[in-house]
Amino acid sequence: MSIETPAGYRPLDEASLPAYLGTLPEIAGRLGGAPENWRVSEVGDGNLNLVFIVEGPAGDICVKQSLPYVRLVGDSWPLPLERAFFEYRATTIQARNVGGLVPLILHYDPALFLIVMERLSPHIIMRRGMIDAVVYPAFVDHLVEYTAKSLYFTSDLAMPAAEKKPLVALFAGNTALCKITEDLIFTDPYRIAELNRWTSPELDEVAAAIRADAELKRAVSVLKYKFLAQSEALLHGDLHTGSIMVTSTDTRVIDPEFAFFGPMGFDVGKLIGNLLLSYFSQAGHEQEPGERESYRQWTLSTIERFWNGFERRFIELWTNNRTGDAYPPDLFEAAEANGGDLGLRSFGQAQHAFMRGLFEDALGYAGTSMIRRILGLAHNIDLELIEDQGRRAACEQRTLSLAIDLVKHARQIPSIEAVTAKAATLQATTGTV
Amino acid sequence: MSIETPAGYRPLDEASLPAYLGTLPEIAGRLGGAPENWRVSEVGDGNLNLVFIVEGPAGDICVKQSLPYVRLVGDSWPLPLERAFFEYRATTIQARNVGGLVPLILHYDPALFLIVMERLSPHIIMRRGMIDAVVYPAFVDHLVEYTAKSLYFTSDLAMPAAEKKPLVALFAGNTALCKITEDLIFTDPYRIAELNRWTSPELDEVAAAIRADAELKRAVSVLKYKFLAQSEALLHGDLHTGSIMVTSTDTRVIDPEFAFFGPMGFDVGKLIGNLLLSYFSQAGHEQEPGERESYRQWTLSTIERFWNGFERRFIELWTNNRTGDAYPPDLFEAAEANGGDLGLRSFGQAQHAFMRGLFEDALGYAGTSMIRRILGLAHNIDLELIEDQGRRAACEQRTLSLAIDLVKHARQIPSIEAVTAKAATLQATTGTV
Repeated sequence: MSIETPAGYRPLDEASLPAYLGTLPEIAGRLGGAPENWRVSEVGDGNLNLVFIVEGPAGDICVKQSLPYVRLVGDSWPLPLERAFFEYRATTIQARNVGGLVPLILHYDPALFLIVMERLSPHIIMRRGMIDAVVYPAFVDHLVEYTAKSLYFTSDLAMPAAEKKPLVALFAGNTALCKITEDLIFTDPYRIAELNRWTSPELDEVAAAIRADAELKRAVSVLKYKFLAQSEALLHGDLHTGSIMVTSTDTRVIDPEFAFFGPMGFDVGKLIGNLLLSYFSQAGHEQEPGERESYRQWTLSTIERFWNGFERRFIELWTNNRTGDAYPPDLFEAAEANGGDLGLRSFGQAQHAFMRGLFEDALGYAGTSMIRRILGLAHNIDLELIEDQGRRAACEQRTLSLAIDLVKHARQIPSIEAVTAKAATLQATTGTV
Repeated sequence: MSIETPAGYRPLDEASLPAYLGTLPEIAGRLGGAPENWRVSEVGDGNLNLVFIVEGPAGDICVKQSLPYVRLVGDSWPLPLERAFFEYRATTIQARNVGGLVPLILHYDPALFLIVMERLSPHIIMRRGMIDAVVYPAFVDHLVEYTAKSLYFTSDLAMPAAEKKPLVALFAGNTALCKITEDLIFTDPYRIAELNRWTSPELDEVAAAIRADAELKRAVSVLKYKFLAQSEALLHGDLHTGSIMVTSTDTRVIDPEFAFFGPMGFDVGKLIGNLLLSYFSQAGHEQEPGERESYRQWTLSTIERFWNGFERRFIELWTNNRTGDAYPPDLFEAAEANGGDLGLRSFGQAQHAFMRGLFEDALGYAGTSMIRRILGLAHNIDLELIEDQGRRAACEQRTLSLAIDLVKHARQIPSIEAVTAKAATLQATTGTV
């Protein structure tokens, strides 16, 4: 390996992992039997890390270890091992706020930059399920709970500055992972960049048009600036359907290694953007035109229920947990001259204005998350698995059309229903593929 | 002293300071002679710290030391000694960006939380000069330069995230000083609070009306939220005319102990607010009605020249130093499809939109800075030195009228000239005192 790593670090493999785990009594006990009985398989299909499933006679676990480079690219692209530390810390904080919606962490090794956690089974990555048009009835309620609680409780609405600022400082160390987002989401798709790729020649023109769209690039630059300069709450930082593992009844959000204090709309928007991307990709997976129409309907209603649920739940948490330094209760209810009703009405107006800002941010970030998956480096299997290039390009065209609209016109879009209506119209008027 | 302090810390006094300074060869050399020849006087007239002037046969210096409590209140209000460290670090960073517009630091003692710096002489605190209607011709250009450079060069427009984030983390430690601002500027004046005081009974009604003004309190809460959650640039954090020392040709910004990464509009707005406060206070210092009209004119034109100069200079720095991660040049000029003119025009539009947002923030923060000096704990001598209570109250009424307008209507105010016109109208229509 050409990248220097700290003393004590070595990437484990299927051969060396059991001996290491054997030194951890709690883990060994959970697996049962002896290390030589444990079955290890490397299953990492993400872009960055090693992931192992270890199965013993009594139980199983999952092990995630940082590599000193980006796995997708190789050691020509170094990446700090510390991302495992940030994932560990973020998961620990989230677990306090969202309980069992994140995996249980069993062990963290600061020298190996390695996390041992419960194995989620029979969960699958939600993105894969959606490609197969699987309905997840529990997903919306769980993600509403996850986003509302993880964002609300690490914001200045819930957390006094004296508690929040040390966390902001801690996660400011996760610079390198943030830089990936800054470059790959907010910069490269809008310029000529070596790592960009897209369905060519079909999308050559729209890619060029996007690179030439001054209004779009200004709006993207505003979103990038907010990503750099707003520390509203502890974000997951990469909240898409590939970071969610599901069964029909259980939902877990995994992989918060991009965690940092940033604009709340980024998490919410990235999720909405990835659901919209799945929506437009469905046509490419149809055997018969229209056969996935009901799945498309489910997807749109999921998007609506997600945002509306998030907004309702966030406001509810805010109303009932006014423990932060922002929006002091005294300014809305306690002062003698407020009058109960007037103060409450004003608080409601303040909350409404706040959520409207968050909605507009979310739409912008949704749009950028869609564009980067079609014109940037890292694509998604929702679209990549569409073998017919012409059909894939048609799906991608619709996705880009809505994405551009969201980024440019977020301030004019009145509601999430207006977003889903735009999506349905695009899907209908550009025909089945 | 009832507050526990770290080993090695002791507050110095006029008797103990020379012996300490005698152990610092560079300082001793600058003063000349022996410690017993040095004349020490404690001159701190601020709210927080000890400040000494030390004069020797060859030269003089200024020594500033943190106390473990708020000097204005006493040891019932503890305050971390570390504020001296943040002042030292902030001054060092600013000096790189603004050169001689801040005092030269000669020594920092991390155990005593003590800064030795050049003595500024014959400088006086600008606020005192303005009370005497002294015109400072060099002030605007210097403050334009100070604010534009100190903010621009620590923002994401100039500083790559990998350099900025460690500084954000460092200054996140200055929590206690930020908390003073959060409480005294953004909270207490808008509620019943023990520390509030105002000219009574004259302002009783307006104070109550402000506490009952739901729209105002919502706007103030938005400004407080930004203060808590935006880390745009390294702020001075307390940039008013009491933090500026002047002669007719030289200007120095002192006392950045409130420094942290926050919204840029806060520094710019606090300065504008304090100039407006001086403007309205002038009537209270007139021996003959109208005798200070030309000074009022100078003050308003100073405000206009300050904002317009700041905007112009900030844009100029931005155009010529695009070294940060935000607003990547590639998105405006470099890409093949931009066309030179189109890209430049788009960049200009992006800059204009950015400055408009900063202007609106600045007006809001200007308003809150004016209100807190009249209804909160810490008042200003501009108004406090007006002995006739009725005249003082009249000046304060006008100040509050404009301040409320700025906070509520920042988004509707087209230009700084619209602000100064409002001030002039208020001054004229409510008559001389």
